[in-house]
Amino acid sequence: MTDSPEYLKKRAFFDSLLTIYGRKPVLEALEDSSLPVHKLHLAESNRKDQLISRIEQLAEERNIQVAHWDRKGLSRISKNAKQDQGVALDLALPKYGSADTFLKECRGKHFELLALDGITNPQNLGMIVRSACAGGIDGILLPKKGCAQIDPLVIKASVGTLFKTRILRCDQLAPVLQKFAEQGARVCALSSHAQDTLGTLDTSAPTVFVLGNETHGVSSAVEKSCTHKIRIPMKNDVESLNVAITAALISFRHQF
Amino acid sequence: MTDSPEYLKKRAFFDSLLTIYGRKPVLEALEDSSLPVHKLHLAESNRKDQLISRIEQLAEERNIQVAHWDRKGLSRISKNAKQDQGVALDLALPKYGSADTFLKECRGKHFELLALDGITNPQNLGMIVRSACAGGIDGILLPKKGCAQIDPLVIKASVGTLFKTRILRCDQLAPVLQKFAEQGARVCALSSHAQDTLGTLDTSAPTVFVLGNETHGVSSAVEKSCTHKIRIPMKNDVESLNVAITAALISFRHQF
Repeated sequence: MTDSPEYLKKRAFFDSLLTIYGRKPVLEALEDSSLPVHKLHLAESNRKDQLISRIEQLAEERNIQVAHWDRKGLSRISKNAKQDQGVALDLALPKYGSADTFLKECRGKHFELLALDGITNPQNLGMIVRSACAGGIDGILLPKKGCAQIDPLVIKASVGTLFKTRILRCDQLAPVLQKFAEQGARVCALSSHAQDTLGTLDTSAPTVFVLGNETHGVSSAVEKSCTHKIRIPMKNDVESLNVAITAALISFRHQF
Repeated sequence: MTDSPEYLKKRAFFDSLLTIYGRKPVLEALEDSSLPVHKLHLAESNRKDQLISRIEQLAEERNIQVAHWDRKGLSRISKNAKQDQGVALDLALPKYGSADTFLKECRGKHFELLALDGITNPQNLGMIVRSACAGGIDGILLPKKGCAQIDPLVIKASVGTLFKTRILRCDQLAPVLQKFAEQGARVCALSSHAQDTLGTLDTSAPTVFVLGNETHGVSSAVEKSCTHKIRIPMKNDVESLNVAITAALISFRHQF
């Protein structure tokens, strides 16, 4: 392995691939011509039912590369043998990348990111993406562990904004947030118990806003990597907001 | 009919009643001890199944008044004979009232209201209530025609905030908005095509913000009663926001 320009380019391309699986989700993705598809993967053992025939037909119509695998080979691609139903699809999302790459690129620059900790509801994830994109957030840190992953439900709930939003993947959130803090970013956990409020935050430093699970808030492991805690002031003794609402208030706050 | 103080008090009490129906919704409402219940209505024809027995048991435990009716009498209360399943429940919501009463009270005062036009998704309605309450909106105009109505789903999605939020009922939105405009309020339709933006709005006049259906926007009938059109500026060519997100940005805009 080498960091040659060619390697980096290839690496960036593979980072941009999002693999979805299951017959219905793959069919729906193929039917949406706005989705940039890279490759369709099929298990050789698939019985040709109506869904599979339609999937093959759409792949042919859209001139999409098809790879055939034995069950084991397909599981390696879907990473979910139990639920892939013998079908996987690589989407090539232009703004889908890794947190590590962004960490290298962002040195010395100003940015505002959202980091998601334990956001398990796909509807909320899609709404967060939509609001963050419209509000001008520079990217969303999405860990593989503990969060809903991008699937057709999330794509739908994002109303097309997923392809315009920089999604930065990582395995776990805490170590990545620590790296951001070491590079001088302010890492702010949203917490209803915080003393400081969002409105008083000085906006000159690059900032990562950490949004936690709606019921349990930011996890203690992740909170340890945060440098600040802030809250959104609420009236009428309301205790919490929907996490997508919180994401929107953060993303749009410069506009008011 | 007379407008004596006693009549007005009685009238205000009946305005505050929200009747829900159906065995499951009524049971769930009775199980939530934070819900202020006025009266339980049962059809005499009800077969005693498990749900009905549990409903009767909870009413007894909570010392709630029970009225028994023939099927016709119950339909008059539920206003939905097809779906009431022989059960209705009056909730006495302290902040549930009529738009007409508010119109009389608000003369010469400053206020900010949300008016909902064609919001059919109960999840969105609940989220709007939650965000508006937390942001300090003075009330929500909810017409009977064309909008989701307050039911257990909405109550759940509002996460307890429905009982802290002034809900102003009316039959149709357009004539009520016209009255607000005649009394000097600014009635602003949210529209992605508007020239003026939310951020530039002068905040001294009492204002009603009109939120339309997510797909179709504010209806043309309602738009005719509006005195202004505004939009929320969006980045990355995003075309629209979820309506609950829009409600939150309006409600919280003074805080940033």
